[in-house]
Amino acid sequence: MSMITTPRYALLMIDLINDLEFPSGVDLLPHALEAAHHVALLKKQIKKLGVPVIYVNDNYGRWQSDFRHLVSHCLQEEVRGKPLAEMMKPDEDDYFILKPQYSGFFATPLDLLLTHLNVNSLILTGVTGDMCVQFTANDAYMRKYSLFIPSDCVASHTNEINQRALHTMKEVVKADISSSSVLLEQIKSPTIN
Amino acid sequence: MSMITTPRYALLMIDLINDLEFPSGVDLLPHALEAAHHVALLKKQIKKLGVPVIYVNDNYGRWQSDFRHLVSHCLQEEVRGKPLAEMMKPDEDDYFILKPQYSGFFATPLDLLLTHLNVNSLILTGVTGDMCVQFTANDAYMRKYSLFIPSDCVASHTNEINQRALHTMKEVVKADISSSSVLLEQIKSPTIN
Amino acid sequence: MSMITTPRYALLMIDLINDLEFPSGVDLLPHALEAAHHVALLKKQIKKLGVPVIYVNDNYGRWQSDFRHLVSHCLQEEVRGKPLAEMMKPDEDDYFILKPQYSGFFATPLDLLLTHLNVNSLILTGVTGDMCVQFTANDAYMRKYSLFIPSDCVASHTNEINQRALHTMKEVVKADISSSSVLLEQIKSPTIN
Amino acid sequence: MSMITTPRYALLMIDLINDLEFPSGVDLLPHALEAAHHVALLKKQIKKLGVPVIYVNDNYGRWQSDFRHLVSHCLQEEVRGKPLAEMMKPDEDDYFILKPQYSGFFATPLDLLLTHLNVNSLILTGVTGDMCVQFTANDAYMRKYSLFIPSDCVASHTNEINQRALHTMKEVVKADISSSSVLLEQIKSPTIN
Repeated sequence: MSMITTPRYALLMIDLINDLEFPSGVDLLPHALEAAHHVALLKKQIKKLGVPVIYVNDNYGRWQSDFRHLVSHCLQEEVRGKPLAEMMKPDEDDYFILKPQYSGFFATPLDLLLTHLNVNSLILTGVTGDMCVQFTANDAYMRKYSLFIPSDCVASHTNEINQRALHTMKEVVKADISSSSVLLEQIKSPTIN
Repeated sequence: MSMITTPRYALLMIDLINDLEFPSGVDLLPHALEAAHHVALLKKQIKKLGVPVIYVNDNYGRWQSDFRHLVSHCLQEEVRGKPLAEMMKPDEDDYFILKPQYSGFFATPLDLLLTHLNVNSLILTGVTGDMCVQFTANDAYMRKYSLFIPSDCVASHTNEINQRALHTMKEVVKADISSSSVLLEQIKSPTIN
Repeated sequence: MSMITTPRYALLMIDLINDLEFPSGVDLLPHALEAAHHVALLKKQIKKLGVPVIYVNDNYGRWQSDFRHLVSHCLQEEVRGKPLAEMMKPDEDDYFILKPQYSGFFATPLDLLLTHLNVNSLILTGVTGDMCVQFTANDAYMRKYSLFIPSDCVASHTNEINQRALHTMKEVVKADISSSSVLLEQIKSPTIN
Repeated sequence: MSMITTPRYALLMIDLINDLEFPSGVDLLPHALEAAHHVALLKKQIKKLGVPVIYVNDNYGRWQSDFRHLVSHCLQEEVRGKPLAEMMKPDEDDYFILKPQYSGFFATPLDLLLTHLNVNSLILTGVTGDMCVQFTANDAYMRKYSLFIPSDCVASHTNEINQRALHTMKEVVKADISSSSVLLEQIKSPTIN
């Protein structure tokens, strides 16, 4: 079909509520903080445009906890990911999905929530580019979502791994990996392609 | 295969954290309270035997709430289901799954949690027998779980509807619908069938 | 939303390619043949209206067979379900889904095919009313399809079981259980409800 | 748990029944044929050891065809993938799964079939390394299968893309990418790790 479909976005923030209390967390932290800085700006601007924000977050095997517990754990205890959680603190009107595995779509209601919100275009941000972002991107692609993965809003353990993951997502799932500022302009002033 | 498999149970409590603030809630309340009385006793006894307890609860379209919010909403506000929530108050070590639809398995991590807990036999309790209990039972049956649905621990809008649902689940998904006291004896003193 | 949605139908024929070579098959056969008579008429008429026809059929644990093998097995061997298969013979342009379990949606691409065909309303027919038709109806209801289950096009092992299943599907999943002739008139001459 | 689990393998052959009638098929063909040569040898040897073989094949949007039709189409018509199909011709006792999307697990009964066959270790082969093999590998990893992806049995449009995909699968989903001859020795003479 040659019909033109208006993009209806959601911003997905992947695994950014994260205590980083695993051995390689020390390597990931500076990259995650830098990406989080851009995600926080993007989130602030994009909410003004009415785009829903969904925290898609690992449950870290804590099946008896819910999202608010995870947020409290990361904010109130002396964990490595505390500065990250402080930047990424959810608002009351943000959505969240707890995922038990790498992909945000696996054994979760994410697809139902996106249908409920009438979304067809996903902005993926978070950590890590080669794992949870990549797995979520693949599953989104098979479900026919258009993908925007701003390169400055994704982090991995090294810049090299991150660049390779972004390149792969551009090639394989046809993601637009323009920076968050370019994406924001595009959302504000959509032009006919 | 003729191998004997030891039953490893989980107790599922379906939609018992429920404000009942819908028109027919007034009809359901007395039936739900009576079932909840039996569920509370069963839960207390069964936890002593190490059986995990999982609240499988509707999110009622509140995608920005989590389970603790639902519990607070039902306990602290003047809602119809308040006495029900008071009887069904979760413990810190109970598990929970928020479901967006009738079946506890649909678009949730319930099956993963049950695998994680190494469970092969489900005790289904809650409301309503002909809707969420029935839908969850069907999905459990297709996933090869043995089903125990104690007849005194399930409620529907009328006794007739409840009896018909129990009869159907006995016939179709081969559920054992013995009362909770009989089930408890069986768990305590398993005999070779 | 108060928008009016045009129904776009698909006819699902459940487990009608069936050798009936199981003990209770002898009881099911006459009921299945009677339903199949009505299904064959409905199929013929409805195809003229451009409604797609999908065989949703058990694989009977034959993971190395495909649908054409099942059809051949039922048509060419001296099996109990041979007269049924003769009435239900698929056309070249019919679709089919092999299901490994009771529900046509469980571990199959049925939902994707229905999306591909742009369908929002399902006409369920076949055997048995209390098992595969019921399980498929429940899963369809959770996926927001409107349901039409013509009472003369569904069969079970006894009339009583069939009537109870139809009643349940009318009550629980809001199925329209009008006969196939009434349904056909409705499809031909839709009126604003 | 520190228990030792015996590997129980299945060989998955991904998209090797393929007419290659798409623009880039001309680039893929020589790489696919070289991989198919190794897959054919591996298949022959591994079947002697009792390992089940599963064709996991795209349906190419042909919802009215089944696997045997796809095989016939590729064998009997003058299509680009004919020599590939000739090398990859299925035996009567091979299994097959038609997949509507990139991952062999998405909207298919593959996981059920693997459970039925009591498999915990997958040998992935086929095309293309960066697409269907990669997507299937990710989904297998989330379902806890051990992965063996023999580097000589996977092909992509260029060697560079193939190498990058293999590297990613080694790093991200912990796949053993040893060659098929090394894998075969390991299956024949398992040693305690």
